[in-house]
Amino acid sequence: MGNLSNGILKADIKSAAKLMRKIEEEDIKAIEELKLLYSHTGHSHVIGITGLPGSGKSSLIDALIENFRNNNKTVGVIAVDPTSPFTGGSILGDRIRMQNHSNDEGVFIKSLPTKGWRGGISKVTSRMITVMDAMGKDIILVETAGVGQTEVEIKKLVHTTIVVLVGGLGDSIQAIKAGILEIADIFVINKADKIDAEELETDIYNLLSMSSYTENNNSRKWLPQICLTESVNRKGIDKLIREISMHENYSKSTGGFAQYFKYKSNNDLKEIIVDYLTNLIFKELENDELYKKLLDDLMDNKNDPYSIAEEILNHFLKFKIKN
Amino acid sequence: MGNLSNGILKADIKSAAKLMRKIEEEDIKAIEELKLLYSHTGHSHVIGITGLPGSGKSSLIDALIENFRNNNKTVGVIAVDPTSPFTGGSILGDRIRMQNHSNDEGVFIKSLPTKGWRGGISKVTSRMITVMDAMGKDIILVETAGVGQTEVEIKKLVHTTIVVLVGGLGDSIQAIKAGILEIADIFVINKADKIDAEELETDIYNLLSMSSYTENNNSRKWLPQICLTESVNRKGIDKLIREISMHENYSKSTGGFAQYFKYKSNNDLKEIIVDYLTNLIFKELENDELYKKLLDDLMDNKNDPYSIAEEILNHFLKFKIKN
Repeated sequence: MGNLSNGILKADIKSAAKLMRKIEEEDIKAIEELKLLYSHTGHSHVIGITGLPGSGKSSLIDALIENFRNNNKTVGVIAVDPTSPFTGGSILGDRIRMQNHSNDEGVFIKSLPTKGWRGGISKVTSRMITVMDAMGKDIILVETAGVGQTEVEIKKLVHTTIVVLVGGLGDSIQAIKAGILEIADIFVINKADKIDAEELETDIYNLLSMSSYTENNNSRKWLPQICLTESVNRKGIDKLIREISMHENYSKSTGGFAQYFKYKSNNDLKEIIVDYLTNLIFKELENDELYKKLLDDLMDNKNDPYSIAEEILNHFLKFKIKN
Repeated sequence: MGNLSNGILKADIKSAAKLMRKIEEEDIKAIEELKLLYSHTGHSHVIGITGLPGSGKSSLIDALIENFRNNNKTVGVIAVDPTSPFTGGSILGDRIRMQNHSNDEGVFIKSLPTKGWRGGISKVTSRMITVMDAMGKDIILVETAGVGQTEVEIKKLVHTTIVVLVGGLGDSIQAIKAGILEIADIFVINKADKIDAEELETDIYNLLSMSSYTENNNSRKWLPQICLTESVNRKGIDKLIREISMHENYSKSTGGFAQYFKYKSNNDLKEIIVDYLTNLIFKELENDELYKKLLDDLMDNKNDPYSIAEEILNHFLKFKIKN
């Protein structure tokens, strides 16, 4: 027990990869390792990068890795985006570009398929962050696809959220209106050489000025900045790195950084409690005669799932569920 | 008790809207109504419509509604797409277009924000399907955003999945590779007047011919068809409607339609069991002194969430969690 943790605390990539596999497989042994790692975490700066497919997140991440490495910072990447080259969703060109970093020991990339997680993507991502944090990564980049629920969930797991947009898609503003505006600490307008980039910049400024950001005159409040980049040509990356660093400092000085770790711990606790409970009851149910009978009733549409759930819980927990 | 159900079984829109609100608010009273409705469900043809923002899902849904209504079929729409006009994520033009149906009693539209669901979007969507099914809707359309986890989860809740693509986005194929191919029963290439539509059609044909669809020579196996549409101009919709009908017949003749309902019931059962258990234990924990102490340890990083979870469960359930 704890062999993997020992390796991980020494930044050993093989040990980390092994534990990550156990986490993905929901192997109960992973929990024992995570227990040993937890007190060594809370140090990495966790950065979420979200945006629609086609916004160039992968080349932006590539440019960020390059810059962080030039400044001797170690980097972990967790890709939960099905269209990311990291997760195998991309065309060959992107994949080759990413191999820039494949021989660099200071970069660790983990891709997560976005389907098939019993407990939701956020649980697995949170555990992957714990592993990379324990490895001593200075920076952890979490890439998400930027439509729907995933990136709002992931937002809770990161210190700094970067929303990547491109001009000309037309739908960017729709996506912003749909809630991405609320989660952004930094906006990146990528492919800034496109003619529509400036128009998009104006749109975001207008949206920001209408939003709650300006309602509060508290000078401590973070106002999201807009960075124009051409990540493929490495343009605008220095300014973005400065913005990221400023947000980190802001987050540390206002207590947000520490608060985040408490939030994450609390969330991890709740998820593992629900996990344990769920495993426990369904294991017990497997061989239970009453459950089999009730399940038959359900399959024959003789009874509804809600009534059956109450019967089962009364049967097992020996007390009435209170409404 | 059961007032809303009575209304819903008579297709009353106000009763349905009220129950849906209770479902969204996780009001426990919703469960009592759902119990009464459940045995009246399993009749609607549930159709998932997924695709990237900008693929024109909303105008396609608009055209489908029009067609179904012309054939005297009643329609429910559940939109879980943050960029959908139904969920308020769209520009004004789309919103006006949708108002075509706002005075039609045979159409019921429910939009779901994609964030803030404690139990995940699939639980809420499943319950909304139950309500619309009990209302007697012939067709239920479920719109999702088509990147990441949501639409894979939603796939399990529908009989027929339509994947909407457009030429020229370049990223469509990436999205297909990323798993959308596996979930499609019907492909729609929308905005087929765009020059790249035929290229995309060829790409999909090639991908399909490489996939497992053709490996099985069983004549009962469904081969996904590709429909070219211009939904704004109502072109190609008739063919799409025929495909949908063919898939419904296929699904009914092969038992998939009935199997789906059993799967849904089983899923609903598991979700409500986990819900009840979770509510139960966190309610108990709220006032528990040991929990408060352990939570303080967690916040001070003196103990890890996994060890704390075990302590709590041992304390409450009075027996050891087995690894």
